[in-house]
Amino acid sequence: MDALMQDSFKASNTSQLSRKPERGSHDKRSIYDILDASLVCHIGYIADGQAFATPTLFWRDADTLFWHGSKHGRMIQTLSEGQRVCVTVCHLDAFNLGRSGIASSVQYRSVMAFGTTRPITDAAEKRQHMARLIDRKFPGRSAELRPIRDHEIDQITVIRMPIDEATAKVKSEAVSEHEEDDYSVATWAGVIPVKMTIGAAIPDQHLLVNANLPDNVAAFADGAALQDALTDAAKRRG
Amino acid sequence: MDALMQDSFKASNTSQLSRKPERGSHDKRSIYDILDASLVCHIGYIADGQAFATPTLFWRDADTLFWHGSKHGRMIQTLSEGQRVCVTVCHLDAFNLGRSGIASSVQYRSVMAFGTTRPITDAAEKRQHMARLIDRKFPGRSAELRPIRDHEIDQITVIRMPIDEATAKVKSEAVSEHEEDDYSVATWAGVIPVKMTIGAAIPDQHLLVNANLPDNVAAFADGAALQDALTDAAKRRG
Repeated sequence: MDALMQDSFKASNTSQLSRKPERGSHDKRSIYDILDASLVCHIGYIADGQAFATPTLFWRDADTLFWHGSKHGRMIQTLSEGQRVCVTVCHLDAFNLGRSGIASSVQYRSVMAFGTTRPITDAAEKRQHMARLIDRKFPGRSAELRPIRDHEIDQITVIRMPIDEATAKVKSEAVSEHEEDDYSVATWAGVIPVKMTIGAAIPDQHLLVNANLPDNVAAFADGAALQDALTDAAKRRG
Repeated sequence: MDALMQDSFKASNTSQLSRKPERGSHDKRSIYDILDASLVCHIGYIADGQAFATPTLFWRDADTLFWHGSKHGRMIQTLSEGQRVCVTVCHLDAFNLGRSGIASSVQYRSVMAFGTTRPITDAAEKRQHMARLIDRKFPGRSAELRPIRDHEIDQITVIRMPIDEATAKVKSEAVSEHEEDDYSVATWAGVIPVKMTIGAAIPDQHLLVNANLPDNVAAFADGAALQDALTDAAKRRG
């Protein structure tokens, strides 16, 4: 059976959940939801024997993750040779303030996805992917932009990584003291939520169009949650 | 001269800024500010030949970074043996919507710090660090909590990593088209800011104290920026 047709990613020693397995999942829908709510990932890779965790923008198409960069950069050059890397996304959702240290923690959602990188160097294919990077946030916007010049597309490489293993970890429980006596500690306890929030747009000074946000950017309204805007965009493109 | 007395971290081939050096800095104050505005980092490390980028909470004391975890976890076990790792912090600040793909980008602040890990296993020293992890967010709160039990402190290891190299990268420029003609493209362009924002606290149901946020949590008020609360806490402890 094609891996794409399965509901879960496989688990090996790399991605198994040895610690707190009840927080983990290999379910594809859970993993996609966490990935699609983020735009920034960290790539774990090795160059000259040194591990790096490099932040970059990414996008997803079914079971494959993509990112891009200057073809002269270290990460892109290294991953163009093909390497099994780790792509991590992490959302911090809340602080749990317990009455004991052990009940004090954070709520989060994270994914670690593993796979082997390959470079995309074909210009037409890279152009499609650059449109995807724009439309992944602002559906349809790529068609409104000045077309990409040949010398611009020549400078970049797109990296593709089919996911061969992945794990989601989620902690969403509120404060729960480990010992009944701890509830008698007279200090404030509770949950303080956090989220990535969109601010008021600053239109460019040289606009030839109305300064209001157009339809394909409307989800990025002042006060909206970034993860909602990104999730919405991912659903609109199907 | 002691590295701690210098204003900048050293740069080697690992941390040199080959791409867009104008965005980078090895200046300690710039690096500290980016680190102190975040609580989550990604650790780039190698286990069994595979690179990982693992998200975790961290704290800083001068030129040393610390994080902790179960002594049975893979990352902690691997790093207890000593490894030169990469600790990355990245703040996404804004989307730049240009009229061309090449002028479309994000504003960000990131740090990549390198150093060799060592485990802290002494119980008294670990207790001090667990207090630091609490007080790093909520200055003074650790003294109000139920003391850590011996069996609790026994389960964790604290990892310390003196920074031997570090680089800050910052992109804070608004949209700037690469070609004068691009300004004639009639599409919306501008900057959409984003930030980690604190939500309304949810007091625990079993509180023995006033439900209002106490002084040591007051910076985490509804609507405040997380980076401001964390930076404020870092300054209060000096």
